[in-house]
Amino acid sequence: MTIEMAKGVRDFAPEDKIIREKLITTLTSIFQRYGYSPLETPSIERLDTLTAKFAAGIESDAAKEIFKLSDQGNRELGLRFDLTVPFSRFVASNPNLKMPFKRYEIGRVFRDGPIKLGRYREFWQCDVDVTGVKSVKAEAELILLALDAFRELNLDAYIEVNNRKLLYGIMDNYDIAHEAREGIIIAFDKLKKQGLAAVQKELAEKNYCEYTIGSMSDVFTMEGTTEQLFEKLEPLCTSDLGREGLSELKELFSYLKFVQSGKVRLNIGLARGLSYYTGTVFEGFLVESKVTSSICGGGRYDNMIGMFASNNRDYPAVGISFGLEPITDALRLSHPVEQKTVTELYLIPIKTFTESLAIAKALRDAGLCVDIDLMERGISKNLDYANSNKIPFVGFIGDSELAEQKIKIKNMKTGSEKLATLDEVYAIVRNEL
Amino acid sequence: MTIEMAKGVRDFAPEDKIIREKLITTLTSIFQRYGYSPLETPSIERLDTLTAKFAAGIESDAAKEIFKLSDQGNRELGLRFDLTVPFSRFVASNPNLKMPFKRYEIGRVFRDGPIKLGRYREFWQCDVDVTGVKSVKAEAELILLALDAFRELNLDAYIEVNNRKLLYGIMDNYDIAHEAREGIIIAFDKLKKQGLAAVQKELAEKNYCEYTIGSMSDVFTMEGTTEQLFEKLEPLCTSDLGREGLSELKELFSYLKFVQSGKVRLNIGLARGLSYYTGTVFEGFLVESKVTSSICGGGRYDNMIGMFASNNRDYPAVGISFGLEPITDALRLSHPVEQKTVTELYLIPIKTFTESLAIAKALRDAGLCVDIDLMERGISKNLDYANSNKIPFVGFIGDSELAEQKIKIKNMKTGSEKLATLDEVYAIVRNEL
Repeated sequence: MTIEMAKGVRDFAPEDKIIREKLITTLTSIFQRYGYSPLETPSIERLDTLTAKFAAGIESDAAKEIFKLSDQGNRELGLRFDLTVPFSRFVASNPNLKMPFKRYEIGRVFRDGPIKLGRYREFWQCDVDVTGVKSVKAEAELILLALDAFRELNLDAYIEVNNRKLLYGIMDNYDIAHEAREGIIIAFDKLKKQGLAAVQKELAEKNYCEYTIGSMSDVFTMEGTTEQLFEKLEPLCTSDLGREGLSELKELFSYLKFVQSGKVRLNIGLARGLSYYTGTVFEGFLVESKVTSSICGGGRYDNMIGMFASNNRDYPAVGISFGLEPITDALRLSHPVEQKTVTELYLIPIKTFTESLAIAKALRDAGLCVDIDLMERGISKNLDYANSNKIPFVGFIGDSELAEQKIKIKNMKTGSEKLATLDEVYAIVRNEL
Repeated sequence: MTIEMAKGVRDFAPEDKIIREKLITTLTSIFQRYGYSPLETPSIERLDTLTAKFAAGIESDAAKEIFKLSDQGNRELGLRFDLTVPFSRFVASNPNLKMPFKRYEIGRVFRDGPIKLGRYREFWQCDVDVTGVKSVKAEAELILLALDAFRELNLDAYIEVNNRKLLYGIMDNYDIAHEAREGIIIAFDKLKKQGLAAVQKELAEKNYCEYTIGSMSDVFTMEGTTEQLFEKLEPLCTSDLGREGLSELKELFSYLKFVQSGKVRLNIGLARGLSYYTGTVFEGFLVESKVTSSICGGGRYDNMIGMFASNNRDYPAVGISFGLEPITDALRLSHPVEQKTVTELYLIPIKTFTESLAIAKALRDAGLCVDIDLMERGISKNLDYANSNKIPFVGFIGDSELAEQKIKIKNMKTGSEKLATLDEVYAIVRNEL
């Protein structure tokens, strides 16, 4: 019988899943502190809901990557490829939601794409979105939320910020044709990864003129402090759109004044390739880490949800998506100790199983993660088991320990042993861990 | 554009998802205290892996309910319909796992079946399994785990226990043909729901003889205390299998001696319709609740994992599955207060947004779930928002509050207001909630 898996999907064995669960628990607690509530939408949607996003000409490559299926009634269905479409569908179909509606969703998404390193057909997304707020106060909140999340994870991170209106406004200034703009943004989105020469080469190959490539290269590589950049940008913002973008950015930075310097940076070169962004865009990175890809990203998308709604209402929205894969990689780098099991204490009964089970229960009731030998193995086999599972403490319970109402507890790292009462066992495990 | 959902799938709006998240958090913490670690397997498996379970003639009706899909390489895939098959596939494909391997998995499964009340095409399962243990010590552990989980959830529950070997052994005693046995078990599995007359009618229609129906009715309706039942069963266990089943049951109950009386009950009528069970079976119910269906169930299945393995190894296994739907229903009945958002405190800045944002951050850092008006709405609209979202506390921050470094906090239930420092605000929210 086959034990092969589907291509591009993964098992997460306990040593991997434990670290991911911790990450999700931490993120969830921060989201909730910011007043974002959990929402769950189904993995299966109607195919026309999933393709609605593409009907507007958005990301049509991705439409090919939808896993299609049908039910017994021969309805055309698909697996969701992101969490934004189900969120938009949910908001649009619940017109009585109180605004602003703030939710997070952490769940699996599916893409039948080519399998490359770090690209999977089934993977998790972790999105936090607010809809109903036109003001960049929403952006300020999500940026603070992201910084708090990374602080809580002990990761040194910063957020780069830009604004789509500002970029389009600057293009107004240089009289760049509207149909050329998305291509420029998509090309410059690769600036950080591929360098300026590669971006310029791509634009030249796509027949962009020298003037466009030159002026846009100047804009997208503009450097300086936020204040310096604001000054340099002022004369380039000659259109209404440009002025609006610049003023939104200035307002956003004004709300973030109390944030530690360097944590939020204006980067005119930040494009983010998704054309549904309508204003602020942002992306998070780690300071001096082997993980150089972005660890979160998002922005304002004021037109997406309305596409699903029949009530002609405006649904301004801002969202941020956390990259669980790169963040997990970063956590692994900073916490290289691997936990193969949640167990903190492994009890080895020596012909005392029934009594030891009651002792295990008492320690479990106190909150310790306790395992107990269920196989009546000898001591050395049991120690092997604890060792190979990297369980930090082992406790022996024989008749003499029972008589004294104590456990002989062994620290598997230091090798030290102690005869201890249950209260002492609890304290040892909690304090020495 | 469509906003219809697929048939048989659901959104969980925050008011539903919050209660489900709490349930899962509680269950997870109990599983971990028992030394069970998290495992994640993919939603998508190869179709032949999913149908392997049916190849052995098991539950062949369910095979029709697999959602089928294919990837770009035209591989035949399907969505998992339970968590036992992926678990078995995982264990079989990782021959170096240390035994016993104890894991839990909480995740979505998919069945393209008819939609009835309480039947969905996408739903969650929550499974805890241990493999590698032949002894009923494993069953004892899982039964204790279940009782602890329900205690932690403040639900008054008990577990019914039976043994398949015992049932088959009793059938040996009555010389009931082997091919007739599974049908009898499946029929009597409906005893609790449909009553004895309906079960007898079904068996008669399926041409079971009067002697079989009569003797089996006597057996499956046997009542008494565990000790009384053991005595009644003794003379019926004339075959090796019967004696083995009875002795396993006696051993299991001996490990559970310290459990409060009535919490674990022997029920000879408990059959559980799944034919892959090989020994102990058990099912949990609530005491005096409107939720009368079982809230958890499981048993020993010693032959399933081996089907997936090529190494001819034995993989004895015991598992328990928690019914998230009936447990959520029960929690709703016992905690009728509905939370529409996680927010504990909603801050209303009165022309003090930037300063209030810093105050919100301080309270969030302290651990409160704080929301803040992002829309510059008037006080009455903001109070409406807090009210309709059932947020328990509101805080006003105007210039005078800022000058005093205080917040005017209002208890939305009692209407009482107080000017309070941040420390006091924290205490009020935590203590009055």
